[in-house]
Amino acid sequence: MTVSMGAPARARLTVPSDRELILERIFNAKRERVWRALSEPELLAQWWGRGNRLVIERFEFQRGGHWRFVEHSDHGVHGFEGRYREIVPIERIVSSFEWDGMPGHVLIQTLTLEQLADGRTKLMSSSLFHTTAERDGMLKTGMEGGSNQSYEALDRLLAKLD
Amino acid sequence: MTVSMGAPARARLTVPSDRELILERIFNAKRERVWRALSEPELLAQWWGRGNRLVIERFEFQRGGHWRFVEHSDHGVHGFEGRYREIVPIERIVSSFEWDGMPGHVLIQTLTLEQLADGRTKLMSSSLFHTTAERDGMLKTGMEGGSNQSYEALDRLLAKLD
Repeated sequence: MTVSMGAPARARLTVPSDRELILERIFNAKRERVWRALSEPELLAQWWGRGNRLVIERFEFQRGGHWRFVEHSDHGVHGFEGRYREIVPIERIVSSFEWDGMPGHVLIQTLTLEQLADGRTKLMSSSLFHTTAERDGMLKTGMEGGSNQSYEALDRLLAKLD
Repeated sequence: MTVSMGAPARARLTVPSDRELILERIFNAKRERVWRALSEPELLAQWWGRGNRLVIERFEFQRGGHWRFVEHSDHGVHGFEGRYREIVPIERIVSSFEWDGMPGHVLIQTLTLEQLADGRTKLMSSSLFHTTAERDGMLKTGMEGGSNQSYEALDRLLAKLD
């Protein structure tokens, strides 16, 4: 694959253990701005679903609250949901995550934002699965490509925000 | 501790790996009868909450369906919820499970019923946690004692069912 100059950066994918996977990606915006895109539903809806229409059915953004997002793409309708375990404003969101297609297969996602010295922000998304098979299954569904599409939509949104 | 003749049997607790725990208990009823007590909400409500009042807020008993039970005891109100991963009638129920007090800490519970030759039924409840700390935390909350109280309530219910 040829990557042209100026193409969107791909997230760095690592698998630090047999039940984890980590995606890291740098965004050209200060941490406060990235946090807004994560925590305000009208902004979240513009990038989370890879740029597809996203219906935010539930967004109780606090410890113990539930979330449920439904993505409407040309390839169908996909629901995702979970519950917030921990929210530290501007820094960290920990929640459970499952896709309707595999109900009861639950991963824990920890999103961390790190302010870089150059004014950009590093987003780290760490996922812990119950089993290695679930982690590998998620990789095979094209989760990495989907995440990169979402991150490109987030790039576009961040460029528009004041 | 002195156990008198005729005292209710305690469930057998084992920890086959560092993230699992298993409870096994034999009930004096055929498998079909135990299945009814697991799958009919009006029966489930009579034993699941250790004999305390249990409000079944959600019981979508099929793959992908959600469940939510709220136990009202002298020590407070405790909500539990999850989602069904797999249901095989009379044999097996696999679901996620979390307690409101630790939102986003999710275990996977597999309940299996085995018909014994003598007409009794063995219930095996196997739980898989994301971390050893979560498994050990669950043990420290008195989960074993609570389960035994529920199983004694189930004994009483089974004795009444036709």
